[in-house]
Amino acid sequence: MDVRAAVAHKAGAPLTIETVQLEGPKEFEVLVEIMATGVCHTDAFTLSGADPEGLFPAILGHEGAGIVREVGKGVTSLKAGDHVIPLYTPECRNCEYCLNPKTNLCQAIRSTQGQGLMPDGTSRFSINGERVLHYMGTSTFANFTVLPEIALAKVNPDAPFDKICYIGCGVTTGIGAVVNTAKVEPGSNVVVFGLGGIGLNVIQGARMVGADKIVGVDINPGKRELAERLGMTHFVNPKEVEGDLVAHLVDITGGGADYSFECIGKPQVMRQALECCHKGWGESIIIGVAGAGEEISTRPFQLVTGRSWRGTAFGGARGRTDVPKIVEWYMDGKIEIDCMITHTMPLEEINNAFDLMHEGKSIRSVVTF
Amino acid sequence: MDVRAAVAHKAGAPLTIETVQLEGPKEFEVLVEIMATGVCHTDAFTLSGADPEGLFPAILGHEGAGIVREVGKGVTSLKAGDHVIPLYTPECRNCEYCLNPKTNLCQAIRSTQGQGLMPDGTSRFSINGERVLHYMGTSTFANFTVLPEIALAKVNPDAPFDKICYIGCGVTTGIGAVVNTAKVEPGSNVVVFGLGGIGLNVIQGARMVGADKIVGVDINPGKRELAERLGMTHFVNPKEVEGDLVAHLVDITGGGADYSFECIGKPQVMRQALECCHKGWGESIIIGVAGAGEEISTRPFQLVTGRSWRGTAFGGARGRTDVPKIVEWYMDGKIEIDCMITHTMPLEEINNAFDLMHEGKSIRSVVTF
Repeated sequence: MDVRAAVAHKAGAPLTIETVQLEGPKEFEVLVEIMATGVCHTDAFTLSGADPEGLFPAILGHEGAGIVREVGKGVTSLKAGDHVIPLYTPECRNCEYCLNPKTNLCQAIRSTQGQGLMPDGTSRFSINGERVLHYMGTSTFANFTVLPEIALAKVNPDAPFDKICYIGCGVTTGIGAVVNTAKVEPGSNVVVFGLGGIGLNVIQGARMVGADKIVGVDINPGKRELAERLGMTHFVNPKEVEGDLVAHLVDITGGGADYSFECIGKPQVMRQALECCHKGWGESIIIGVAGAGEEISTRPFQLVTGRSWRGTAFGGARGRTDVPKIVEWYMDGKIEIDCMITHTMPLEEINNAFDLMHEGKSIRSVVTF
Repeated sequence: MDVRAAVAHKAGAPLTIETVQLEGPKEFEVLVEIMATGVCHTDAFTLSGADPEGLFPAILGHEGAGIVREVGKGVTSLKAGDHVIPLYTPECRNCEYCLNPKTNLCQAIRSTQGQGLMPDGTSRFSINGERVLHYMGTSTFANFTVLPEIALAKVNPDAPFDKICYIGCGVTTGIGAVVNTAKVEPGSNVVVFGLGGIGLNVIQGARMVGADKIVGVDINPGKRELAERLGMTHFVNPKEVEGDLVAHLVDITGGGADYSFECIGKPQVMRQALECCHKGWGESIIIGVAGAGEEISTRPFQLVTGRSWRGTAFGGARGRTDVPKIVEWYMDGKIEIDCMITHTMPLEEINNAFDLMHEGKSIRSVVTF
């Protein structure tokens, strides 16, 4: 079938809106009509060429929501008409990782997904017979896409696509880091570095679980208002701190953060995030993705005196299990999404979404089909 | 009263056996007759002058066992005749740290202890009226010493002093890292770097809790026999590994260690210990103490893909609560100590214990009074 997609032909070039051919779903695969998709920093990272694993030509996009239109042979958990969120971290429920309660990093289709292919080693997308690759197993920058059954979360059909698509990445990554990875307890003091699309969700996650002090750190004072709306109790602009930032944060939190979150991707900030943690029990969670080859460092004394250094991907969420719950939290008003979606546009304007992101003018842009 | 002690007058010099004056216990303090003391790397570290916090003149020693001879006013949990192990990490059961189940780092007397003083800011030791400092709050290189009540664990009076003194540091640090800090589960695969007095106790701790593979890593093949006796299932000599040590360890453990322990104090080994952990859930625990100013580093990708980097001090043990239990584990035969105590000598030969340690000829030397 012909589908309408934004195609990334090569690194550094704008996306082009084209008609692309999509094959139907094979065994254990599902055809989804994408109704809305967010545009995330990870898409921009790959499009820029900085991602060493980036492959072209490809159809980017990994933060979508849509409707099942057709299921392949053997699919049992989904049927036409189901509302779904694509999962770039699938949940097969059978691999060594899915069977270990300590991780969410299902490995069932990892190697083919990393190559831009479906689990059978082929692509469903092509242009005039030339193969076009999938991206993160999702490729939501197309109005139809094919995914493995294990990479789709079935969600509440009353939920609006143009909001819950954000749960496909940013919301789950931020809230999940609080709920699944850190397991922040009520009354905890939390420090969040970077008040972008992830950091804001860490903040509202911390609020939801009853954190006490929620300190946001960002060099852009324009981030303050929205962060406060979502639960931030203290704002720190490193440019305005006299003396050492870490000492200042330890002071604000009365001895250090019980939990800190790095939502930027800068090794020096990751170090600050660890070192502002409370002696004895503070845990720092790395969410941001550093550049290729970059390294973090600290004195081992920081760990020996009781701090822990950890990381998280997709908020430690098991997508098929956890994403539907987060959609319900949104529907129940436990978390907010609408206020973070600053721009909505048709597919034809998708390059504008990247511009807004690079200019720091958007929290999240959503494309609707 | 006059006591017999090994005095450290200055960094780098041998200890001298002297008669030292000891004041009796003040309020909340206890006079202990030390019956035996181990000689640990930490004593050597301070004596060498490499410890930036080392103070002289002082009476070193922190791995002792003895008998309560007199209690000061207000002491309620101990009486003359009780058998005790001194605790360089006390347990007041009232401070913010003792009341947080995530840490064992009681802070009640930390500042005075770090200055070589009793909690009231004075020393009980002197030579001809000149003050001699305490060390780690314990000073077990004397046949009598005074400690705060909160720094003494009351233990089984049937246990032999010349063995259980080792529980005052090495045994508890190693076994506690497994039991309290990592909480290793039965069936786990464990990698231990450094098969000295701490690493061997990590190994027997891992055996006690039912670990599956217990891999020991040491460049000295002479360590192998005793490590195997204590539960090591695989020995790796990095000098004999062709190619990358981390890849070799990942291979041996079938994907990486569930838990790894660094028991040496070298930043490069700490990195290997982290990176040999299993993706998704492996945890690396730093036990070794690195040199002043040294730093650890890694790619943040190691953490984002699910590994955790942590540390431990005194095995995460709360001394008054946990040390008596470990003494019982020894009495019940759940753990071994005798085979690790390679040398026993009188106080007059204590400098020989340091020589044996530096020459790698001892696991643990014990001084008996």
